[in-house]
Amino acid sequence: MRLFLQVVPVSEAVRVVRSIAPPVPKESVPLEDALHRILAADVRADVDIPGFDRSTVDGYAVAAADTVGAGEAIPAMLHYRGRVAMGGRDPGSVAPGSCMYVPTGGVLPKGADAVAMIEYCEQLGDDVLVHRPVAPGENVVFADEDFAAGEVVLESGRALSPRDIGVAAAAGAGEVSVMRIPRVGIISTGNELVPIVAAPRPGEVRDVNSYLCGTYLMERGCHPVYYGIVRDDRENLAATLSAALDQCDLVLISGGSSKDERDNTAAVITSLGEVLVHGVAIAPGKPTILGQAAGKPVIGLPGHPASTYVVLVAIVDHLLAAMMQTEVSRRTVSAVLAENVPSAKGREDYVRVMVKEGRATPVFGKSGLLNTLTRSTGLVRVPAGSEGLEVGEAVEVIVW
Amino acid sequence: MRLFLQVVPVSEAVRVVRSIAPPVPKESVPLEDALHRILAADVRADVDIPGFDRSTVDGYAVAAADTVGAGEAIPAMLHYRGRVAMGGRDPGSVAPGSCMYVPTGGVLPKGADAVAMIEYCEQLGDDVLVHRPVAPGENVVFADEDFAAGEVVLESGRALSPRDIGVAAAAGAGEVSVMRIPRVGIISTGNELVPIVAAPRPGEVRDVNSYLCGTYLMERGCHPVYYGIVRDDRENLAATLSAALDQCDLVLISGGSSKDERDNTAAVITSLGEVLVHGVAIAPGKPTILGQAAGKPVIGLPGHPASTYVVLVAIVDHLLAAMMQTEVSRRTVSAVLAENVPSAKGREDYVRVMVKEGRATPVFGKSGLLNTLTRSTGLVRVPAGSEGLEVGEAVEVIVW
Repeated sequence: MRLFLQVVPVSEAVRVVRSIAPPVPKESVPLEDALHRILAADVRADVDIPGFDRSTVDGYAVAAADTVGAGEAIPAMLHYRGRVAMGGRDPGSVAPGSCMYVPTGGVLPKGADAVAMIEYCEQLGDDVLVHRPVAPGENVVFADEDFAAGEVVLESGRALSPRDIGVAAAAGAGEVSVMRIPRVGIISTGNELVPIVAAPRPGEVRDVNSYLCGTYLMERGCHPVYYGIVRDDRENLAATLSAALDQCDLVLISGGSSKDERDNTAAVITSLGEVLVHGVAIAPGKPTILGQAAGKPVIGLPGHPASTYVVLVAIVDHLLAAMMQTEVSRRTVSAVLAENVPSAKGREDYVRVMVKEGRATPVFGKSGLLNTLTRSTGLVRVPAGSEGLEVGEAVEVIVW
Repeated sequence: MRLFLQVVPVSEAVRVVRSIAPPVPKESVPLEDALHRILAADVRADVDIPGFDRSTVDGYAVAAADTVGAGEAIPAMLHYRGRVAMGGRDPGSVAPGSCMYVPTGGVLPKGADAVAMIEYCEQLGDDVLVHRPVAPGENVVFADEDFAAGEVVLESGRALSPRDIGVAAAAGAGEVSVMRIPRVGIISTGNELVPIVAAPRPGEVRDVNSYLCGTYLMERGCHPVYYGIVRDDRENLAATLSAALDQCDLVLISGGSSKDERDNTAAVITSLGEVLVHGVAIAPGKPTILGQAAGKPVIGLPGHPASTYVVLVAIVDHLLAAMMQTEVSRRTVSAVLAENVPSAKGREDYVRVMVKEGRATPVFGKSGLLNTLTRSTGLVRVPAGSEGLEVGEAVEVIVW
């Protein structure tokens, strides 16, 4: 007896969600608000950076040739011609046999091609003794050495890190074009569900999935819109899904852990659009539904939070990345399996593991336990073609 | 000639910032707003979770003993006594030799101690044929098996992940106690600085550090307060620092890349409080100043963004963690050095590296280049006691 006649491989599920992902529009935001946003257009340097030959140390700007052979015993003696002022436009110039003091970040005077660090120099009245030779270019960044005007400094599709924001600032990008934040509707369905602040009676469970999915979406750069708990009733579920489709770019129907509820979710998606996949060869997470309505993806997630989270990571991550026209960004860590992991061939298993000192130990206890989510480091994927992984095998752990 | 007479080791700098870190107060926030916040009190389960013996599959609730020896050819035949309703309070009961249908998440009826998956059962009128034996407890989570009432499910000091939020939801925590978000003032100083939207003239550079520091702080769970660019003028700097100390928990004075500016920063901190450290044995990042005023830490960061970022990671991370009473959380990846990394003994070097296929290659080009921040994977720390690291050596890369 099979419940899922057309169970599809994970790779096919990923292909389907990518094919129905509606790209979100672009928008322009101030640079200081762009952290972790997905860049929607290349950022180019508008000018050469740093824009002038710049000292990277406090020291004396010199012609490197004047310091050849200088040493502790026989220093090069150069005529002191004054200081370069910070932020000043005209740094002055250095003739052969002379030097100028230049602070870190200061403009290299004309005629100089290197800076001798102050630690190796000694000023005696109008003369400066240089105790070490410097090579041409030493302690200097040249005008376009960091980025040249017009050069792409950050590529479209990149999730902006603080370091990227710093580079964009140097490139003069007061605003950047980024993908609009996707709005994702979250519906929890199931007669057994109660709000988390309620004391559950026997048979009732708290609506964990709204919180789990909502904060997962926030972490992935989306804006969750909560539609609360819908009883196991097609009319109500259809009305809520319609409202969510109006207001959101994507809808997750979380819950439906019983067969009846899953049937309702599928039926309601069908009434408003179409079900494309009903059942994925993934464990946990088999009762996943992929559909669309009103031109927007509607994903039915399994009822148990631990299963839901695996489906979010293994499938929904790809949908979100496609909507934001970026790549799925995964943190992984290499480890060696500390135990055998059995698996059924034809099914992609995601095994929760705890990684310690390079060893990945499958988390003990039943996979239906919530505590496996907080007591594990991440997931090991057992490919569909495999009948399991053996102790000692090298694995890449997808870190939570 | 030495500029930094009392340069201290990085370990001492970390000890100092930890000792002056003012703990931020606690506050209570709705669970859905608590992502990535630092938990300020343990979260305990208020009830047993799941609270009842619960089926983890769709199937037939049975007494496991009734299925001993069942197989494809000789199934166990059990009397069908109806269905368990989702969310219903009374699941009914199973006498020896009988069974009930139970959906995933449903309550196990009295008398049952296991669930036979529907895939291995066949319903024939009032009878159900079970083709595989089940062990006691199979496909069942018992009432307090996930968490027992009163058990700590999340410990104080933890940065809340989506999975943690899910567990807190299951534990009935509609609100959680978290550390208040630290407010961090950011001042940029230097006569050479111009706003990022200005076209810099020779000698001028854009104020990259405000953006780099601000978004770094956001990523670390802080709220940046920007005080803009202050000219190289002690009176102005003191007035701005005073205002920032009034409004913030911590102030970063970013910039001061020239000796004069650094002197100003130190002088202004001294005028309002005290300088504790002036110069750290770290490269890049030597001209770091650690001080306090009005009972709050004031950190002087080097002028160059690449140096600033290293100091943020190596020192300021510890200050923020101490303020939020948590641990510094680092992502690291193990790699093997692809080249020798020379270093001066007595100085802790942080070398930017690009990691590819397990090999860490020091980033080419001068360390004063901004592009090294976006072209690298992270930092390799060369301990102060070492004269460098050798090609082939195993290193832990602190991932950006």
